[in-house]
Amino acid sequence: MSSLAPLLPGTVALVGGGPGDAGLMTVAGRAAVEQADVLLVDHLAPEEALTWAPVETLVVDVAKLPRGAFTPQERINELLVEHARAGRRVVRLKGGDGFVFGRGMEELQACTEAEVPVRVIPGVTSSVAVPALAGIPVTHRGIVQGFTVISGHVPPGHPASTLDYGALARSGTTLVVLMGVATLPAITAALVENGLDPTTPAAVIARGGHPDQRVVSGPVADIAVRAAHVDPPAVTVIGEVASFAAVTAASTLEEVN
Amino acid sequence: MSSLAPLLPGTVALVGGGPGDAGLMTVAGRAAVEQADVLLVDHLAPEEALTWAPVETLVVDVAKLPRGAFTPQERINELLVEHARAGRRVVRLKGGDGFVFGRGMEELQACTEAEVPVRVIPGVTSSVAVPALAGIPVTHRGIVQGFTVISGHVPPGHPASTLDYGALARSGTTLVVLMGVATLPAITAALVENGLDPTTPAAVIARGGHPDQRVVSGPVADIAVRAAHVDPPAVTVIGEVASFAAVTAASTLEEVN
Repeated sequence: MSSLAPLLPGTVALVGGGPGDAGLMTVAGRAAVEQADVLLVDHLAPEEALTWAPVETLVVDVAKLPRGAFTPQERINELLVEHARAGRRVVRLKGGDGFVFGRGMEELQACTEAEVPVRVIPGVTSSVAVPALAGIPVTHRGIVQGFTVISGHVPPGHPASTLDYGALARSGTTLVVLMGVATLPAITAALVENGLDPTTPAAVIARGGHPDQRVVSGPVADIAVRAAHVDPPAVTVIGEVASFAAVTAASTLEEVN
Repeated sequence: MSSLAPLLPGTVALVGGGPGDAGLMTVAGRAAVEQADVLLVDHLAPEEALTWAPVETLVVDVAKLPRGAFTPQERINELLVEHARAGRRVVRLKGGDGFVFGRGMEELQACTEAEVPVRVIPGVTSSVAVPALAGIPVTHRGIVQGFTVISGHVPPGHPASTLDYGALARSGTTLVVLMGVATLPAITAALVENGLDPTTPAAVIARGGHPDQRVVSGPVADIAVRAAHVDPPAVTVIGEVASFAAVTAASTLEEVN
């Protein structure tokens, strides 16, 4: 079935909202919002997209703000199922792509376990789009043939970390760090201690895709100090391609955000 | 400037078209196509999107088919600049995201060097969306905290390869291989030789996001044999999360493609 097929009552659509600019929502994501009886939104979902919902749509803010009030994931899962079982068209809208550190699979599983029909509408992931909007390609012919995206939510050395920083330092891919503002000093130190060249270019892009986008760049060894004043959310890029940020900023681009 | 600002004559928009389903184009990408005087398209761009262009739009097929006729990248760059200098609104539409193995940066550089104003409109990358549409999250809480995307275009051991397969085998991230149908035997062998557990789940997703999507799954040690009959384009996922493919296929999903 096409992603554009009408949403049926009693079903859920899991929609990735992209990096924040409503123009970077998908056509199918917009169509889903326009049909929503209930809209469950995060604080990173594009605000403008809320204006696409019918006036009678119930909008539920399940924003999970760091260190603030939040709706536990289990409760979000329950809300999805409860509203669908009541015969409503339920749209779960979040920033980026729901399957990139978005707990989208947990929501998918909750729906399938409850036998609620569910549709996945992927979104533009900030891990690729935010660098691109700052003029940084995560891959580039002749320079780098891959990229790795990690979350800074669980820092190096944390018992729950599943990442091998020695391998990350040597893989030969561009490294993109999401949710890594607070843990950037620990992450960059772990990479350099594990053999990453301390002069490797790096860039921190704050408010990517928004009119007030800012880019801070410098060698990986001191990017955490240079970006210490940056407020989340921000995306960090580490690798040769990060050096393109300065070139692009000085160019004749119509716009990069 | 918003991605939805009108395109001006004499400018270029580089648009990522997503994995193939027109609903997975962005709202801004669709708006750009609707304003195009000239549309330069690849064979992986969503065909349905061409119907959104005005009837008077000049559509140029620059498809770079493997082992077939193709337009060299340098000529595509020239076409972008020539049409823009002639005062046209030029839209470059390709599959996926133009900055993920899409040579988007080369096109951006060609425009900026020629002082042609250029706008980047990121797309939904197949590296994340194709697995998601098959019920495979590239990250999942408690299982994996990152993912790595590589191209199979340059196989392990090739003099041009910049990747360290030992590091890829140990990084602790989900591995996603694009353009890797032909080189999958070499890639999976290199990973297992470098220490990746041969029983690690893997899945090959062909025609992701299309009505005829197919998923082949099995342990990494013999996924290449199982998927030997798969025609490109396909996306391969290697990691614990690949085991979700079977669960999802057996579920009550309304749809996953």
